[in-house]
Amino acid sequence: MDLNFRKIFNVIGFLLILQSGLFLLPILTGLYYGEMQHCLAFAETALGCLGAGAALYVMIKPQSDTLKIRDGFFIASLSWILLSLIGALPFWLDGCIPSFTDAFFETSSGLTTTGSTILPDVTALPRCMLFWRSFTHWIGGMGILVLTVAMLPSLGNAGQTIVRYESPGPTLTKMAPKTSDTSKLLYLIYGGMTVAETVLLKLGGMSFFDAMLHTFGTVGTGGFSDYNDSIAHFASPYLQMVISVFMILAGINFALYFLLITGRYREVAIDSELRLYLLIIGITSMLITIALYLSHTYNSFLTAFRYALFQVASIITTTGYATADYDAWPSVCRMLILMLFFIGGCSSSTAGGIKVIRVFVLLKLIKRAVAVRLHPNAMYNIKANRQVIPRNIIDNICSFAFLYFLTLFAVMFLVSFDGKSFMTCFSAAATCLGNVGPGFDAVGPTTTFHAFSAPIKVILSLTMIAGRLELYSFFLIFTPGFWDSKR
Amino acid sequence: MDLNFRKIFNVIGFLLILQSGLFLLPILTGLYYGEMQHCLAFAETALGCLGAGAALYVMIKPQSDTLKIRDGFFIASLSWILLSLIGALPFWLDGCIPSFTDAFFETSSGLTTTGSTILPDVTALPRCMLFWRSFTHWIGGMGILVLTVAMLPSLGNAGQTIVRYESPGPTLTKMAPKTSDTSKLLYLIYGGMTVAETVLLKLGGMSFFDAMLHTFGTVGTGGFSDYNDSIAHFASPYLQMVISVFMILAGINFALYFLLITGRYREVAIDSELRLYLLIIGITSMLITIALYLSHTYNSFLTAFRYALFQVASIITTTGYATADYDAWPSVCRMLILMLFFIGGCSSSTAGGIKVIRVFVLLKLIKRAVAVRLHPNAMYNIKANRQVIPRNIIDNICSFAFLYFLTLFAVMFLVSFDGKSFMTCFSAAATCLGNVGPGFDAVGPTTTFHAFSAPIKVILSLTMIAGRLELYSFFLIFTPGFWDSKR
Repeated sequence: MDLNFRKIFNVIGFLLILQSGLFLLPILTGLYYGEMQHCLAFAETALGCLGAGAALYVMIKPQSDTLKIRDGFFIASLSWILLSLIGALPFWLDGCIPSFTDAFFETSSGLTTTGSTILPDVTALPRCMLFWRSFTHWIGGMGILVLTVAMLPSLGNAGQTIVRYESPGPTLTKMAPKTSDTSKLLYLIYGGMTVAETVLLKLGGMSFFDAMLHTFGTVGTGGFSDYNDSIAHFASPYLQMVISVFMILAGINFALYFLLITGRYREVAIDSELRLYLLIIGITSMLITIALYLSHTYNSFLTAFRYALFQVASIITTTGYATADYDAWPSVCRMLILMLFFIGGCSSSTAGGIKVIRVFVLLKLIKRAVAVRLHPNAMYNIKANRQVIPRNIIDNICSFAFLYFLTLFAVMFLVSFDGKSFMTCFSAAATCLGNVGPGFDAVGPTTTFHAFSAPIKVILSLTMIAGRLELYSFFLIFTPGFWDSKR
Repeated sequence: MDLNFRKIFNVIGFLLILQSGLFLLPILTGLYYGEMQHCLAFAETALGCLGAGAALYVMIKPQSDTLKIRDGFFIASLSWILLSLIGALPFWLDGCIPSFTDAFFETSSGLTTTGSTILPDVTALPRCMLFWRSFTHWIGGMGILVLTVAMLPSLGNAGQTIVRYESPGPTLTKMAPKTSDTSKLLYLIYGGMTVAETVLLKLGGMSFFDAMLHTFGTVGTGGFSDYNDSIAHFASPYLQMVISVFMILAGINFALYFLLITGRYREVAIDSELRLYLLIIGITSMLITIALYLSHTYNSFLTAFRYALFQVASIITTTGYATADYDAWPSVCRMLILMLFFIGGCSSSTAGGIKVIRVFVLLKLIKRAVAVRLHPNAMYNIKANRQVIPRNIIDNICSFAFLYFLTLFAVMFLVSFDGKSFMTCFSAAATCLGNVGPGFDAVGPTTTFHAFSAPIKVILSLTMIAGRLELYSFFLIFTPGFWDSKR
C-alpha cells in the first residue's frame, strides 16, 4: 500500500472545515427569512462537520507532503462521495426530504451540477433549504477541491495532483505558475460572473433570492430552480436571454477569460474548442428554430429562435433549465437536443458531457482515417489551436469516449430493472452521466426522478459523481490494480 | 483523375454477366411451380443484364490490369448500388412490389443481409419472387465481389483490391496465396454449410422450398422468411435449435473453418474473437433466460433458454429472425438485445455490426487506459491471438467506431423527419446500419418498414449498403479528396 493516508486525511480534514463554513450561508438565509426551526439541521451538520474536520486536520500530522497520482484519484472520489453524503444531512435531519436516499440523490445532483430532482413540488421547501440546494451547484461547478487548493496554499505541488482529477477536460490549463494561484483566479472569474448575472436578473424584475438561486444554477451549469416549471415560470424574454447568454458563457473554458483579461485576444480567437462550441450552438439553434417555426409550435420566428437558443444552450452546457417542454417538440428537434446531451461544454468550464474538445478530436480522427485510406503512406497529425496534439492525449480521448458509451450502456441496463420505458432508461442514464438534468419521457423536463426505486436512485447518484469526475478518477479506485502496491 | 475506368467497367461487365446467370435460379423455380407469367420479369432483367454486361466486358479493353486502392473503393460501392437496383427490377416489372423505392429497399435489405422488409404480407408473393428475395441473402452474405473474384481468376493481384473492401472486419484473412483461391475456399465452406442446414431442416419436417429459403436467411445472416411470423411459424423446437446453431456458425470467421479443416485446432482454440463471441452469446443468453423465467414469460426454464438463445443468436449475428415478439419481453431483456445490435458477428463472417474483434480491441483500450493512469511510464501493447495488434489497425478500429456512431446519429436524425417515435427512429437506424433486420417499437419484430416515406426508405437502403461495406468504402467516394487526383 503506497497511499499517503496521513496527508489524504489531512486534506479531507481541511475540506470538512471548509464545508462547515459553507453551511453558514444557508443558516444566514434561514435566519433572514425567519426559518429558525429549519436552521437547526444546518447547524447540527455544520458542527459535526467542523468537529470531524478539525480532528482530522489538527490531529493527523502527515509525515510527507508528497501526493502521488493514486492519492489524487482517491481524494477526488472520496471527497465527492463524502460531500454528497454530508450535504444530504440537512435535508434529511430537517425532514423536508424524508428519505436519505432521496436527499443523497438531490445533493449529488446539486454538487455534480446535474440538476435532476426527486422533488415533485420544489416550492414546498423552506427558503434556507432551497438556497442550500442551489448553492451546491455553485460549489460543485468550479469544484470543491479547486476551492480547497485556493484556500490552502501550503499544499504546494501536491495541489496540482488534487485539482487535476476534479477539473473537466483532457488537459489542465495552467494560468499561473502556482496551482493555488490558478485556483484563486478561477474562483475570481467565477465570482465575477456570478455577481454580473445576479445583478442583470435583479434588474429584469426577479427578486434578489430568485436571482441568486438562478445564477447559481446558471454559472454552475446545474439547473435547479425554486419553481416547478423551471425558467418557464418567468415569462420575460429579457430574463430568458440573460440566462441563455450566461449558460453559454459558463460552458466556455475559463482559461479563455483569463487570456481575455490579460489581453491575449489572438489566442482566444484561434481556440479550436471555442469555435466548434459556438458553431454547434449556432447550427443546432437555427435548425431547431426553423423546425419549430415550420411546425407552427411558435408563430413568430424570433420567439421560436429564443426558445430554441435557450434549450440548445441549456442542454449543450448540461445546465438543464427549460422554458418549454422540449419533449413535446417535433421529432427532429428532439433528435438534435439528444445529440447535444452527449457533446457537453468546453473543457475547464463548469459544464459536463464528453466535452467539445474531445468531440473535435474524434471528428479529426475520422477525417484522418479517410485521408489515410486514400494515401496510406502519408503522415497526418491532429492539431488543435494550431498545435499538434500528442499521441497519448489522443489515446486518452478515444478510451474516454468508449468508456463513456460503455458506462451509458451499463447504467441503462441497471436502470431498466425498474421496468420503465426504453427512452426513460436511456435518457436517465445519459442525463446523469453527462450531468445534464432532465431527460425524455418519464424523466422529461416537466417530470422528476421521484418514481425510481431507491437502489436505482443510488446508482444514478453515483453515475452523476462518476460523470463529474470524468469516469476514470471514479472507476479507478474500484480496480484491483489500484490497491495493489506491487503493480 | 487516376481511376482505371477501363478495368473497372471490365470487372463490372463480368459482374453483370454473373448476375444475369444468377437469375436463372428464380426462373427455374418459377417454371417448377408453374408461375410462367412471373418468370417473364426475371427473363427480361436477365437479358438486359447480360447484354449490358457483355457489352462492357467484351468491348471495353483495359489498357492496364492494375487496380489501385481508389479503384477498389469505387468498384465496391458502385457494384453494390448497381446490383441493388438491378435486383429490384423483377419485383417492380412483375408488379408484385408496385413501388420501385420499395423494391429497391427490399433488394438492398436482401443483398446486405439486413432482412428488414416493407411487405405487410409476404405470403402474397409468388414462389419465384420469394426465392429471389431470400437468394439475395445468400449472394450478399459471402459477397458478390468475392464470387466475382472466385470466378474470374485472370484478375491476379487486382482481385485482392476488389475483395478487400467488401469483406467485413478490420483485416483480410488470407487462406491461400492467391486471392481467387481464397475466394473459392470461402464459397466452398459456405456451400457446405448451406447443404448441411437445408438437409437438417428438411429432416425436421420443413418442405424443401422452406428449408432452402430459411437456410439462405440463416447462413447469409439475412433474416427473410416466407412467413409473416418468421420462425415463430414453425412450432418445432428442433427446427428452432438447428437455425440457432447455424446462425451462430455463420457469425464465426470463415477462416477458422479453413483452419479446422486443415487440422490447425490450436489456432482456433486461442482465437480471441471467437472466445469473446461465444462468451457474449453465453452470458446474454443466460441472463435473458433467467429474466424470462423469473418474469413468467415462459414457465419452463428450458423453453425460456431456447427462446433466449435463438433471439441472442439472431441479433448478435445480425440475422433478425424471431421466434417471439422480443419487444414485449421485460425491459432488462430488451436492453441486452439492444446491446447486441451494436456488437455484431465476427470479422470475415457473413454477419454485420461493429464486429466482435473491434469490440475486443475497444475493451482492451479501456483496460490499457486504466493501467496507464496508474503507471504513466509503463508501455502497454494490445494483443489479439497472442500477437501485438499494430498501431495503425487500432487507429482504424477507433475511427471506425466513431464513424459508426456518427452515422447512427445522422441517419436517426434524417429518419426522424417522418415524425415517428424516438425508439422507432433509433432502432430503424441501428438495425439498417448493423444489417440486423427488425428493431423496436414501430419497426419491431412483428411489424415492417412499409410505413416510412419514400425518401426515408431510400436513406435506409443506402444506410444498409454503407453498413455492409463497413462505411469507409461507401463514404469515401462522396469525399472531394477521392475525386481529386492531385491529392
